[in-house]
Amino acid sequence: MRATRFFISTLKEAPADAEIVSHKLMMRAGMIKRLGSGIYNYMPMGLRIIRKVENIIREEMNRAGAIEMLMPVVQPAELWQETGRWDKMGPELMRVKDRHGRDYIIQPTSEEAITDVVRSEIRSYRQLPINFYHIQTKFRDERRPRFGLMRGREFTMKDAYSFDRNAEGLKQSYQIMYDAYTRIFQRFGLQFRAVAADNGAIGGSGSHEFHVIAETGEDALVYCPTSDYAANMEAAEAVALSATRPAASAALTKTATPGKAKCEDVAELLAIPLQNTVKSIVLTVEGEKEEDKQVWLLLLRGDHELNEVKTSKVAGLANYRFATESEIVEWFGTKPGYLGPINTRKPVNVVADRTVANMADFVCGANEADFHFTGANWGRDLPEPVVADLRNVVDGDPSPDGKGVLAIQRGIEVGHVFQLGTRYSEDMKATFLDENGKPQLLQMGCYGIGVTRILGAAIEQNFDDKGIIWPTAIAPFEVVICPMGMDRSEAVKAETEKLYQAMLDAGIDVILDDRGERPGAMFADWELIGVPHRVVIGDRGLKEGQLEYVGRRDAAATNIPVAGMLAFVQGKLAGA
Amino acid sequence: MRATRFFISTLKEAPADAEIVSHKLMMRAGMIKRLGSGIYNYMPMGLRIIRKVENIIREEMNRAGAIEMLMPVVQPAELWQETGRWDKMGPELMRVKDRHGRDYIIQPTSEEAITDVVRSEIRSYRQLPINFYHIQTKFRDERRPRFGLMRGREFTMKDAYSFDRNAEGLKQSYQIMYDAYTRIFQRFGLQFRAVAADNGAIGGSGSHEFHVIAETGEDALVYCPTSDYAANMEAAEAVALSATRPAASAALTKTATPGKAKCEDVAELLAIPLQNTVKSIVLTVEGEKEEDKQVWLLLLRGDHELNEVKTSKVAGLANYRFATESEIVEWFGTKPGYLGPINTRKPVNVVADRTVANMADFVCGANEADFHFTGANWGRDLPEPVVADLRNVVDGDPSPDGKGVLAIQRGIEVGHVFQLGTRYSEDMKATFLDENGKPQLLQMGCYGIGVTRILGAAIEQNFDDKGIIWPTAIAPFEVVICPMGMDRSEAVKAETEKLYQAMLDAGIDVILDDRGERPGAMFADWELIGVPHRVVIGDRGLKEGQLEYVGRRDAAATNIPVAGMLAFVQGKLAGA
Repeated sequence: MRATRFFISTLKEAPADAEIVSHKLMMRAGMIKRLGSGIYNYMPMGLRIIRKVENIIREEMNRAGAIEMLMPVVQPAELWQETGRWDKMGPELMRVKDRHGRDYIIQPTSEEAITDVVRSEIRSYRQLPINFYHIQTKFRDERRPRFGLMRGREFTMKDAYSFDRNAEGLKQSYQIMYDAYTRIFQRFGLQFRAVAADNGAIGGSGSHEFHVIAETGEDALVYCPTSDYAANMEAAEAVALSATRPAASAALTKTATPGKAKCEDVAELLAIPLQNTVKSIVLTVEGEKEEDKQVWLLLLRGDHELNEVKTSKVAGLANYRFATESEIVEWFGTKPGYLGPINTRKPVNVVADRTVANMADFVCGANEADFHFTGANWGRDLPEPVVADLRNVVDGDPSPDGKGVLAIQRGIEVGHVFQLGTRYSEDMKATFLDENGKPQLLQMGCYGIGVTRILGAAIEQNFDDKGIIWPTAIAPFEVVICPMGMDRSEAVKAETEKLYQAMLDAGIDVILDDRGERPGAMFADWELIGVPHRVVIGDRGLKEGQLEYVGRRDAAATNIPVAGMLAFVQGKLAGA
Repeated sequence: MRATRFFISTLKEAPADAEIVSHKLMMRAGMIKRLGSGIYNYMPMGLRIIRKVENIIREEMNRAGAIEMLMPVVQPAELWQETGRWDKMGPELMRVKDRHGRDYIIQPTSEEAITDVVRSEIRSYRQLPINFYHIQTKFRDERRPRFGLMRGREFTMKDAYSFDRNAEGLKQSYQIMYDAYTRIFQRFGLQFRAVAADNGAIGGSGSHEFHVIAETGEDALVYCPTSDYAANMEAAEAVALSATRPAASAALTKTATPGKAKCEDVAELLAIPLQNTVKSIVLTVEGEKEEDKQVWLLLLRGDHELNEVKTSKVAGLANYRFATESEIVEWFGTKPGYLGPINTRKPVNVVADRTVANMADFVCGANEADFHFTGANWGRDLPEPVVADLRNVVDGDPSPDGKGVLAIQRGIEVGHVFQLGTRYSEDMKATFLDENGKPQLLQMGCYGIGVTRILGAAIEQNFDDKGIIWPTAIAPFEVVICPMGMDRSEAVKAETEKLYQAMLDAGIDVILDDRGERPGAMFADWELIGVPHRVVIGDRGLKEGQLEYVGRRDAAATNIPVAGMLAFVQGKLAGA
């Protein structure tokens, strides 16, 4: 590609509404252009990257036996009513009426559409397993679109859907997709991590997220550096921090803690470690009638945080909400800050986090303003609690597989694989005939990659103060040739055209910057755009038979003899 | 590709709602699957064809210097309000509100979006000319979606937009696109014709349609076999059928024609040629006030048809409508069937078609029920009329370029190139600075190809009673290998795998039918799907060292020695 036949548009400053680095850099590099809130034009420079991402995904999906098709952007509401998602999904689901007043949605995903295809196309177990995918425009009406392509409204997603005869087959299809995703992210040249994710009502270990590692990531990833344990924060298991409970050694004592409503303040006042305190979290579960209302008390160590997903999995807490202050006063006899499991005004269900259940001589609220109990002990001062994993993992926790301690890093979710089971096939009556001619529900899996989000995530991981640093596989161009004074020097012009043609012939995705810009502006453009390999051709070097090579991460240029440059660049590309 | 790794789904019968052959065959061949009214899943077999069509378009657009980008499916209403299309376009424009109640549209085309990009990106004449295109999902809420991909609601279109400094530049950009379109349709391997089209308010010859020739086409194309004149029916110029007007030879006579309200019936009653009769068409043009209302009388030869587009171009008729019966009675004094230009009750504006203006001794209504005038003559019996080209061309008319006679064939519109001028840049204030630093309006052209419609049009042109006959360039596969008894015969299996691998190595897009179907069912599937080249491998042939080749249009198979088959097929592909 010659730059004068392409469209290059860079900005010195990012627009004011660009908050994060990837958004700023993509705007400055002319890769995207805002059309509306959360809606972007993919400019020529950005589209090239999207196409490279798509092609890698496509090649690996095909290799894994998935079959490409294309489902519509606009889909009839009836299908979404069959599965209940028409009602369950909130305003994030973009709804539209046609000229006859019929309801449609702009697809955020295609579980319903593919299940509709499959229920009429798949009749026999002989046709299974099968996996269909498409790469298509999606729309989610985010309440607050931001961060450019990271949380836009219109975006491109690859979504695949597998169908199997039974749970065992689903597991195999799932593993094939897991492996394909691993290859895809490896080929992108990005640092990534697959983590186990919560999979809601389905249960089991049937869901993983793929994250691009980046300090700016929204999600906390938990992993064990000395084993293969990895999960997102919602799903990471927190074990008890002592394996057994020490014997009680202190007496239960009501202690004045005036104005000390937080564990940190109580610990400071009493000059004890925060780890000896227990905090109280009060939840409400509504019943059919007012008198069926239940109040629950969850106990966590003072330095731990509640994990709301784990909380919803405690038996009886599926539909919990946080209690109101008036409920707390009614059940505990005092306001928040001095609550505890001993001497509540009305009976509450107590659940202790695993770590709390193995504590002795702990400090908790006394259900009286300005007072705490010290020396509280299970069994002696209050009944043995229900025990559950309620808290977020923290750095340094033992790994649940017993093979080390956990670490936490930040990530950006770019892929998700999920065993759906019969969630959709049941509602939509998608069955096949088994070997005995009996209808059976299809076992379904779904597998998504946020195509356009990959661009943002890749940049969050790979940038410096000059701009973007693309991994070669998804760079808009692999190599840029920057001639200095091509219009003035015949030698530069001749060598430039020769090298450009040789690179094209070698199948290198090269752009020749023939715009005639000054070297400073030209180099700044390509550093901002992030092309990984640059060759500079100038009269001074040519006199000595040399060209200049600069890798995007290199501190300095390397001189390479003219005749060796092509091979040198090929070596760099092969090593990338 | 192995058939067992792909998805093949054929039907014996087309669904009842499929009316035309391309819709029936695409449904039967498993290329599309209905999701909703005018909304289709592109199944794997169909998507392969779409991708081939897209790739040919992309290659030729790039070669012509156009630059690919991607504009969003969902676009803010504000842009469409700027150009007035928000109000002007009817219910065909799909409108949608987001969670905040803001208005959006699902794009039917992208003139507004690209002009919004260009008005901020293009600042100087140095950046011109430029041409951006995208291949994107479109939506038009057709009142009555039908004919499968031919008149669907969701479809894929390639739309390109050129921007130039002046009208001369626009003409050049337009010609480049016209030439690119010609190459694109040639590469598809389809019989097509480019015809001049009406370009509304712009005037001049700045619009052409590209049609795939097919007997079932909705549009009539007018062309001169002995010159390069070609236009669609709306735009084709109809000349006067006699160059001069004969002298009057008959007297004006009021003649009883009881119950004969049609020219055909009058001609039969009077035993004269239909070509001697004149028919009357009455139009109304509303004024600001009731008394400003004008009634117009258009006169055509009895065997000719009114061309409504030409009518709207007659000075004063831009906003015409057909007159109501009560208006006709008020102005003419009688009901339709006996109307004419002589003795109207109230004054009307008379416009005669070019052919009528050169008629003498003609027959027309007498403005009295059951009476016509015979022997009517211009100048003598009524004033000389305003003359205009009002009629549709008919087969055998003289070509307006004077180089032969016109013929008519049917076509399906699949492409349109259009000189827009400043229609959008004016409304959206899209300017650039010229050499003198003065802002000038951008001159714009737009260029569309209906990607998914190409599939329907190609089939309407190429089918037989067995199914589709794809041109090789856009066939889902170029070649199918059909082994007979691959599971029983080691020899067949070995030769099949060898040939399959050799074809893959040679870059041939081949599918190996390894499904194990009976030969009859297997051949019927591939004839229905329309793969242009078939190789059959069986034990009987192998014993004699022969394989069988069948071209999709061939009446019989050809035996080819095993070792020569690859070269034979390559020869067929090269010749295609």
